[in-house]
Amino acid sequence: MSAVVDLVALTLLPLGRWRAVAEQLQAGRTAPAILEQHCDDWASNRAFRSPCPGVRALRARATKALERADRTGLHCVPWTDARFPSLLRTIADPPPVLWLRGSPSVFDASSVALVGSRGGSPYALAVAERLAADLSARGIVVTSGLARGVDSAAHRGALSVGGQTLAVLGCGADVAYPAEHKGLMADIAKTGGVVSELVPGTPPRSYFFPRRNRIISGLSRAVVVIEAGEKSGSLITARSALEQGRDVLAVPGNILNGRNRGGHALLRDGAKIVETADDIVEELGLGFGRTLTGGPRNVGGAVPESDPVLACLVPGEPSDVDTIAERSGLSTAGLLTRLFELEVEGFVGRAGGGRFVRLDRTC
Amino acid sequence: MSAVVDLVALTLLPLGRWRAVAEQLQAGRTAPAILEQHCDDWASNRAFRSPCPGVRALRARATKALERADRTGLHCVPWTDARFPSLLRTIADPPPVLWLRGSPSVFDASSVALVGSRGGSPYALAVAERLAADLSARGIVVTSGLARGVDSAAHRGALSVGGQTLAVLGCGADVAYPAEHKGLMADIAKTGGVVSELVPGTPPRSYFFPRRNRIISGLSRAVVVIEAGEKSGSLITARSALEQGRDVLAVPGNILNGRNRGGHALLRDGAKIVETADDIVEELGLGFGRTLTGGPRNVGGAVPESDPVLACLVPGEPSDVDTIAERSGLSTAGLLTRLFELEVEGFVGRAGGGRFVRLDRTC
Repeated sequence: MSAVVDLVALTLLPLGRWRAVAEQLQAGRTAPAILEQHCDDWASNRAFRSPCPGVRALRARATKALERADRTGLHCVPWTDARFPSLLRTIADPPPVLWLRGSPSVFDASSVALVGSRGGSPYALAVAERLAADLSARGIVVTSGLARGVDSAAHRGALSVGGQTLAVLGCGADVAYPAEHKGLMADIAKTGGVVSELVPGTPPRSYFFPRRNRIISGLSRAVVVIEAGEKSGSLITARSALEQGRDVLAVPGNILNGRNRGGHALLRDGAKIVETADDIVEELGLGFGRTLTGGPRNVGGAVPESDPVLACLVPGEPSDVDTIAERSGLSTAGLLTRLFELEVEGFVGRAGGGRFVRLDRTC
Repeated sequence: MSAVVDLVALTLLPLGRWRAVAEQLQAGRTAPAILEQHCDDWASNRAFRSPCPGVRALRARATKALERADRTGLHCVPWTDARFPSLLRTIADPPPVLWLRGSPSVFDASSVALVGSRGGSPYALAVAERLAADLSARGIVVTSGLARGVDSAAHRGALSVGGQTLAVLGCGADVAYPAEHKGLMADIAKTGGVVSELVPGTPPRSYFFPRRNRIISGLSRAVVVIEAGEKSGSLITARSALEQGRDVLAVPGNILNGRNRGGHALLRDGAKIVETADDIVEELGLGFGRTLTGGPRNVGGAVPESDPVLACLVPGEPSDVDTIAERSGLSTAGLLTRLFELEVEGFVGRAGGGRFVRLDRTC
């Protein structure tokens, strides 16, 4: 627990220190050592606006934050925790801790970020909703920033088909911002997650958002930009994604209204063009997508007897997802991804009532 | 004259022979020899639907076509003529003759083709008009196919700023098709040109249009596709352009209505994305475009004393285009292109009344 306290305390250091802190953690230095070094620097450096409260005070604040999280049902997932999203751990400056409202299982499935303009046009909102719904239907977690416009349309699109979605905030994970998204936030947390690297109760500040964007991309296999103007914050997310080695894709749109200059600039620079969710899953190399229209890809191929999902299915006997999840021990999201793959490969079919059935083609 | 008669007679051979005929002409065989060979083949081959009328009858028809053209003010420009568009001469199968309503000087300036859907959306029509007007303002001839939708919007956009535009028809250059574009055709011919490889009076036939498209791209430095669905004829023009080594560019648009599947597929395959006319002129390597917003590019550079246009301008004394054209001996289109370049380079400025003035910056 005390290790977690120190990791949380690190996030109470001034923003300008965060990148160095993360890199030191990645380099193997311990949290207490890093905390003490930066408190010393802070205390001796007059460039900081506020005086350093000292290591002890920061630890006390961190402890209070953990207690508050405990009371309000927030998980604190330190980067050393097995539940910490593995993709996010690979970036240059992962957050020392992630605060999560929801279930950590949301980190198990592949995620794609959909980001775009706050002042989204009706076109952009419709695109975000449709892509999110179609990605969700393939078991992919849709990640975004809960902002007005494209972000919230993406979250809503995922929820509309019962999918999991992740909202990454630029304030505490228990702070509803914008306020009108309080209900949406609660809905997201029911099946997916609301996350932040900021201690609970942190108010939204403009300077948190650019750093928040690296988490959106860091959690994701790819970032899809939907309607970004020339100076859109979505371009920061796209740049983070490129730095992190993630795929960047963009949805084209109207050239006359100036709303897509940023997205089109990304396309000019080599981002992949997105028209459908299949374009995204294909780009991610998940092996399905456009080929789907040609029918099952591996018909006639060998049945993977060792597949843990197939092993839980009796040919000709439809099972619902909960049953298969219980039998296989997999999270729902991971299970849905695999079931979709098996369906595309022709090993599994859909039965009524959202149930799946094993197709034993050797019979 | 008799050489021209034989070239025209070659265009009266069955459509399936045209490519071979053009290649034979390119290879240096004479028109009479090619005509006689193909008439022999036609006469002895039962696969043709109609009997071969014979060399003499084809020559008589060709002569009549030339007489008709003479009466109606159509120019017949054989491919051996110096006025034949030089870019079109470089393709694998240039037409033996071009019939032109308008002035052959329209072939002097650089041309860009704007093509797209007949059932153009309001967005596509607005894009076509704007790009055409902006290209025209840069002295570029806008080439298209006079069809409903995007084509006619492109022609109208060019005319709206007094630009030259070329319409390439899938019927005789004296046949108004579609009929509602009769007035537009007349307007185009006043300052630009209406062209066809088909003898005057030839009615529009569906099989002429795919071949017509190779002339649209063959006349042009680049083809810009605006709103093309998955099976749009514009994709034939784009393919011709690629075969002819021309640049292919596409305007992005809505991904939800299916109207841009063809254009977006081109982008996916490497076509350049177009948002503005500057994107096109930049891609063509005309050396101006985006840099324009940064101010004149060569300010401070040496004045090119040998420039034939600058030589016709007296510093501080505004001259109109007609006067400069007379002094320089250049066509209006060629002159406007060069004046625009000189303006960008900071050597020429605009005075009132559409006049240009030399800026002698060494003074």
